[in-house]
Amino acid sequence: MRDGKGSFICGLYGGEPYASGEQPESGIVKLNTNENPYPPAPGVLKALADFDGRRLRLYPKQDGGVLREALAAYHGIAKENVFVGNGSDEVLALAFRACFGFGEGRPVLFADVTYSFYPVWCKFFGIPFETLPVGDDFHPRADSFARQNGGIVVCDPGAPTGLAEGEAFLDGVLAANGGASVVIVDEAYADFADFSAISRAVAAPNLLVTRTFSKSRSLAGLRVGYAVGDTRLIAALTAAKDSFNSYPVSVVTAVAGAAALEDEAYYQAVVGKIKETRDSAARRLRTLGFDVPESSSNFLFAGCGSAVRAKAIFEQLKANGVYVRYFDKPRICDRLRISIGKPEEMDVLFARLEGYLAL
Amino acid sequence: MRDGKGSFICGLYGGEPYASGEQPESGIVKLNTNENPYPPAPGVLKALADFDGRRLRLYPKQDGGVLREALAAYHGIAKENVFVGNGSDEVLALAFRACFGFGEGRPVLFADVTYSFYPVWCKFFGIPFETLPVGDDFHPRADSFARQNGGIVVCDPGAPTGLAEGEAFLDGVLAANGGASVVIVDEAYADFADFSAISRAVAAPNLLVTRTFSKSRSLAGLRVGYAVGDTRLIAALTAAKDSFNSYPVSVVTAVAGAAALEDEAYYQAVVGKIKETRDSAARRLRTLGFDVPESSSNFLFAGCGSAVRAKAIFEQLKANGVYVRYFDKPRICDRLRISIGKPEEMDVLFARLEGYLAL
Repeated sequence: MRDGKGSFICGLYGGEPYASGEQPESGIVKLNTNENPYPPAPGVLKALADFDGRRLRLYPKQDGGVLREALAAYHGIAKENVFVGNGSDEVLALAFRACFGFGEGRPVLFADVTYSFYPVWCKFFGIPFETLPVGDDFHPRADSFARQNGGIVVCDPGAPTGLAEGEAFLDGVLAANGGASVVIVDEAYADFADFSAISRAVAAPNLLVTRTFSKSRSLAGLRVGYAVGDTRLIAALTAAKDSFNSYPVSVVTAVAGAAALEDEAYYQAVVGKIKETRDSAARRLRTLGFDVPESSSNFLFAGCGSAVRAKAIFEQLKANGVYVRYFDKPRICDRLRISIGKPEEMDVLFARLEGYLAL
Repeated sequence: MRDGKGSFICGLYGGEPYASGEQPESGIVKLNTNENPYPPAPGVLKALADFDGRRLRLYPKQDGGVLREALAAYHGIAKENVFVGNGSDEVLALAFRACFGFGEGRPVLFADVTYSFYPVWCKFFGIPFETLPVGDDFHPRADSFARQNGGIVVCDPGAPTGLAEGEAFLDGVLAANGGASVVIVDEAYADFADFSAISRAVAAPNLLVTRTFSKSRSLAGLRVGYAVGDTRLIAALTAAKDSFNSYPVSVVTAVAGAAALEDEAYYQAVVGKIKETRDSAARRLRTLGFDVPESSSNFLFAGCGSAVRAKAIFEQLKANGVYVRYFDKPRICDRLRISIGKPEEMDVLFARLEGYLAL
């Protein structure tokens, strides 16, 4: 042993992992991991209640079975254009391995302010990367991607900003890239925005779009994510999956996940309520003096004026049972990421905030 | 694009994936993927029926929560000695990344006849490896591991042989290795054998033991696997997990998996029935002229005399609705791996076999 932290024998993995938000016990107002405040669709609860546990003695279908078929039908595409995984984090991790790192040392490109798991996956797989600075408005610049690269990842709407980029930005990135590498669009929050690249992904040979059921479908605990893209990208993703874990999606997850696609009205109603609460919460935060950019997601990115103040508010809220997310990182350490809860949960948040600001 | 298979733009993943057994529709006698012919424990079915689907809107605990705690209690160890994953394939994949490849080019060592996923994981992560030939009796030789290495993997009982190696072999491997690297013991089938290295793993700094609920616990469709080892190995596994997918174990999987540990009598009865069926099936196969080594697993490794004959029997059985596993690989292409089903399923197998042999 050479030291106390992971370096041992001829070595152990010592990479800096992704730090996900806390998962505390109940009894708090939980606005820290962008979960959905509303329950899954009634059809999901029924599918779970009706599920015959005796089926679990057999392995699942390797490709996600009924869930993959339901997703293909939902988007009106072939199942060969769909890849199903254990949450979009797993789908993205496998996509990095399947599509990136083949550029003879050319770096994968993504924004400096984006989902902080991207550099972790690059390091996990030994894929070179470079970050491109976003503007002071936190928007990435499409033309900044016009350079030799081994792949591109964009998050639209952006994490942790909530900003929408849309079709013109995507066109700019694709044009800047010139088809030289695979472009992954992470659409974890796209159900709360107006634009999705999914219809484009089936047509373009080098565009992969990833989605999750953890936000808009209220199924963070079930672990469902998927990707849509050219059949050759999906085949590479499948080969990577089958080189890591043949059966990542449990039978329960496949059945309940498929059921989540059957009640479009419920899903639209939930998304609509969250967008409405989001927009009124943004207005209330602005009247309290926070800098809140227009969100196209299920969270707000509230500027507090300084890192000291952001951290103080974060800790004060936590001490009073309201969990939000604080990132101790360059450029964003003066902000708080606040997930959208039910109106009554937001009222608790604002009561605590007003109490703090009155001090 | 340069060719038609995966080499595209600046490249896509083109590794040779693990080939898992077929998962055909029902209506056949399925003896091809070592599943358990008996249902999960009644307590698992009850836990599923009682599960409140509304919980799924929240993320799971990152460490497997109640399942990790139940496993620690079951083995009488600290939860810091337990790592939970989405099937033991995922646990092994993460363990390869967490513990192997730090040996400055020294190869990971495993037998030439063993679980065929080991070389796939090495290639997936770019870890050098070398295989060591087993004897003509298919037993690996402990002294063959006495060489510079970047890690060791043994499967006990062995796949696809079903052979038990036991404590003396493990002691020999550990002595041969001299503590220079991590030794992983894959115990996917140990519930059907007499020896387990789990009690040893907590004491040794460089021994990691992996287990699955897919065989003895009748939960292949739920995806539960785990590892037991020194807290430093578990910490490295956790860092690797958190660098790939923070939440691999769904809330349903954690709750139902924990319930599977509560009914020891049911589990022992199921394992006892399978061992009894296994041993009588081995005798019947030997009387039919097959070469069947003593199995300590839930399958038999039947030598058919020649590759041509093994493949012919495999195809004949499949054509008649009985699925077994044939490996078109050096040294084992003259054998069939036959999972143990219910006695009546084995009767169907033997009726088909006797029909074929009478031709």
